[in-house]
Amino acid sequence: MSWKGGQRGLRDLAEGLVKAGALQFGTFSLPGGKESSYYVNLRALPSYPGAYRLVVDAVAGLVSKKTPKADALFGIPLTGLTIASPVALALKKPLIYARTQKDSEGRVMEGEVRPGWNIAVVDDITDTGRSALASVKALEQEGGEVTHAFVLIDRLEGAAGRLKGAGVALNAVTDVLELAETLHSMELITNEHLDAVTRSVKSR
Amino acid sequence: MSWKGGQRGLRDLAEGLVKAGALQFGTFSLPGGKESSYYVNLRALPSYPGAYRLVVDAVAGLVSKKTPKADALFGIPLTGLTIASPVALALKKPLIYARTQKDSEGRVMEGEVRPGWNIAVVDDITDTGRSALASVKALEQEGGEVTHAFVLIDRLEGAAGRLKGAGVALNAVTDVLELAETLHSMELITNEHLDAVTRSVKSR
Repeated sequence: MSWKGGQRGLRDLAEGLVKAGALQFGTFSLPGGKESSYYVNLRALPSYPGAYRLVVDAVAGLVSKKTPKADALFGIPLTGLTIASPVALALKKPLIYARTQKDSEGRVMEGEVRPGWNIAVVDDITDTGRSALASVKALEQEGGEVTHAFVLIDRLEGAAGRLKGAGVALNAVTDVLELAETLHSMELITNEHLDAVTRSVKSR
Repeated sequence: MSWKGGQRGLRDLAEGLVKAGALQFGTFSLPGGKESSYYVNLRALPSYPGAYRLVVDAVAGLVSKKTPKADALFGIPLTGLTIASPVALALKKPLIYARTQKDSEGRVMEGEVRPGWNIAVVDDITDTGRSALASVKALEQEGGEVTHAFVLIDRLEGAAGRLKGAGVALNAVTDVLELAETLHSMELITNEHLDAVTRSVKSR
């Protein structure tokens, strides 16, 4: 299965994510007691080769369309790194990533950030954008420049605005509302599921 | 640059690793006060697209030659995961990996281990083999079966024997001695550097 883009690509992607268990609709309890009308978790995506290939191709296509001249990519571990690694390889761009712990010299970055390099930040999903923004700041501290961030799925919880405030454009392959609408048009989720997602997105 | 195998492939690989700073010869202090005649660190490899491509193709080729029927791959974070992710994608095999921390339910694996699945363990480098062996045990506890482990570089510090004792064959694209010999034949390291590596390997 390869990424076709457009409605066809979206349908393949949405169905692939559901089959991989990465995207579920219903009522889910979030940490802290709140409820959500959907659940997204891409950590096990690499266990589903067809869906994993679609995701990597979709993100690679978006990066090369929006920032063809990026000097390097930055992957946010762990899940973002499972996407950013094959994307960087496909685009022949250097990949920088964050350690999970500082090394003995207090460094958190793996790979070289050259002064003035334009670096595209890549993650699997974004909600408020705080995690992507922390990466942007860390890269800027190392002398890099960040103008674009990329995710597969935008949860539509404020990331685009927060990143824009820092001069970074958020590029998402898709978002939760578009995924719900796509699955609804394929009769894979009910009216009630779509309504619940729509309400929760509009209420933000 | 693509992986050619044989002497030609080895020369490209050895030179690529040196240029990426992933392989150095000289006198290095190890944690604990010991000295080593070489230094290998593949964490920044993804920052060098040419060498990264060679490594991924070499490991993918070895996995598909030695365990063409493996049901899934297992990547050891972080560096092993930057190799295992694109290898799994290229071979269209499910990728399972370890979290860096247990989740709220105490699980450490991402991705499903199906009962009886034969799983190929992939890491960047091995020394004593203790880390690979821990992954083997964890996968067996989840119901998987491990017969083969793969690394780019074997440091020749006992991993093959330790893994064999657990019924696992260690497959390495190359080892430190072969890399040193290759670089020496290309006149990229001195007689003294080669002798030091040879002595340290033979003394184990």
